Amino acid sequence: MHGSRLRVAYQGVPGAYSEAAAGKAYPNCEAIPCDQFEVAFQAVELWIADRAVLPVENSLGGSIHRNYDLLLRHRLHIVGEVQMPVHHCLLALPGVRKEYLTRVMSHPQALAQCELTLTRLGLNVTREAFDDTAGAAEHVANNGLRDTAAIASARAAELYGLQVLADGIQDDSSNVTRFVMLAREPIIPRTDRPFKTSIVFAHDREGTSVLFKVLSAFAFRDISLTKIESRPHRHRPIRLVDDANVGTAKHFEYMFYVDFEASMADTRAQNALAEIQEFTSFLRVLGSYPMDMTPWGAPSSSASSSTNPPPPPPSSSAPPSS
Amino acid sequence: MHGSRLRVAYQGVPGAYSEAAAGKAYPNCEAIPCDQFEVAFQAVELWIADRAVLPVENSLGGSIHRNYDLLLRHRLHIVGEVQMPVHHCLLALPGVRKEYLTRVMSHPQALAQCELTLTRLGLNVTREAFDDTAGAAEHVANNGLRDTAAIASARAAELYGLQVLADGIQDDSSNVTRFVMLAREPIIPRTDRPFKTSIVFAHDREGTSVLFKVLSAFAFRDISLTKIESRPHRHRPIRLVDDANVGTAKHFEYMFYVDFEASMADTRAQNALAEIQEFTSFLRVLGSYPMDMTPWGAPSSSASSSTNPPPPPPSSSAPPSS
Repeated sequence: MHGSRLRVAYQGVPGAYSEAAAGKAYPNCEAIPCDQFEVAFQAVELWIADRAVLPVENSLGGSIHRNYDLLLRHRLHIVGEVQMPVHHCLLALPGVRKEYLTRVMSHPQALAQCELTLTRLGLNVTREAFDDTAGAAEHVANNGLRDTAAIASARAAELYGLQVLADGIQDDSSNVTRFVMLAREPIIPRTDRPFKTSIVFAHDREGTSVLFKVLSAFAFRDISLTKIESRPHRHRPIRLVDDANVGTAKHFEYMFYVDFEASMADTRAQNALAEIQEFTSFLRVLGSYPMDMTPWGAPSSSASSSTNPPPPPPSSSAPPSS
Repeated sequence: MHGSRLRVAYQGVPGAYSEAAAGKAYPNCEAIPCDQFEVAFQAVELWIADRAVLPVENSLGGSIHRNYDLLLRHRLHIVGEVQMPVHHCLLALPGVRKEYLTRVMSHPQALAQCELTLTRLGLNVTREAFDDTAGAAEHVANNGLRDTAAIASARAAELYGLQVLADGIQDDSSNVTRFVMLAREPIIPRTDRPFKTSIVFAHDREGTSVLFKVLSAFAFRDISLTKIESRPHRHRPIRLVDDANVGTAKHFEYMFYVDFEASMADTRAQNALAEIQEFTSFLRVLGSYPMDMTPWGAPSSSASSSTNPPPPPPSSSAPPSS
């Protein structure tokens, strides 16, 4: 990087959760705000940035299919992952009290994640959707809105001169968002630390038990899966079925997303993919990258610690095995 | 039902997409609006309603984990499914022109689904989140808001006296939402027409290739899967891993959702589930119900026909096979 800091593109404005994810992934990076996810991809493709961070799933909201579509439309490679606990704050201008509020602004997902807590706080407010959480905080600050709060991070409060009216207002304290980091070039996979590999595949043949064969390629090599998901194939979402009993019908067409716990430098993974390629009509490795092994926990938060989920049982179980 | 019409609870107000799903599923039903999904569940449990309709996945947004959680927390049974193409309209008071608009209100998902089209229409508007699409239309009408449009169904326009400023404004014309119908009692599964069965399972043992064994139970009986998804186990989402190389880490804990193309009246399905029960620590049949085999198409819409996806290839492929 010519001695300069790594430039990391993210969707949102300073104070966004994606910026925090960029900071966790690349501690001394220069985070570059982009107004859309697609712009963050382009920033990397055009060498304006070295990396992009992209949220791909949330433990409560599910996978963000839209962002997986972006991964498929572009040719960037996943080079890492970070998992971030969701920790929302209710922010308002200094001196504003909860009773003054008639409106709360934030990203639609953040509004949904705090629905019950807002009601429990006794707030009778309309909710206004904003492109991103930190952008909502900036809007409240810049327009001097004294009847409006924003849901955003504590860092957004600092950046835009807002006070934290309530801390840790997400309904589900165990809610976690997973981000991936993207680069123009794949990293060279290693075997001296835990790696994860993300693939996408699809098949065209009928009744061939393709998914079963794919999973057997992992199972017989003792490779564990951390994610599996079928989804409608975006470009051919509808399928015609001729069935004499029920007439003509149209069904979803599917692709599969699989994450598995092995490095592509591992011969087992190479052999598994060679076998999978025989059964599938489309196969793409999105990336092979170090697993995020840092422990959870929100050291900056006291609100969430009291509502943490119970500790896991001593004989801990495995992630979904292939 | 004592000769009276079937009462079907849905989340939203009249004109909501869930109401349309209820009408598709039960053509002559009395649709009962509820302000929350949980209330719709309770309405059925308390015999206020006979059925509830619940959106569970969208081809672009993904599975709605939150609503699957409701299925697990309650004891209702899935007794049917309907798939509805997403078709949004931009609604405003009569006489209002696009140039007057400064604001658009709707459900956060609907706002997200029309993001690009709103920009293409040259609208420079703030977006305001509302609990449901039809509720936004009702709000615009009841408050005489001449600077505000709602994104909702054409039926909502009729109900609340609004005009349709733009028809079919969803960014992706192939976007489809899947709803399930719920009842207190399961239906008696049949074998004389196509049935689908939805199950949830989880396992506690480590490294046992449980998912592979489960899928083999389907594959060896030639039962096709139409959905498979891993997700963090909500009540024990975090797992402690002791690994000498990397220290302590916490991982997601998983459950699996599987839909397969067979009736529980089919011996193959019974044998498959008996086998699956051996491998899993938790298994629940959410329901066995007739597949939605009606063809797509929006007969009431001219806007969508021009942007329909290309017809499927003649030698059509299968849904994801086990």
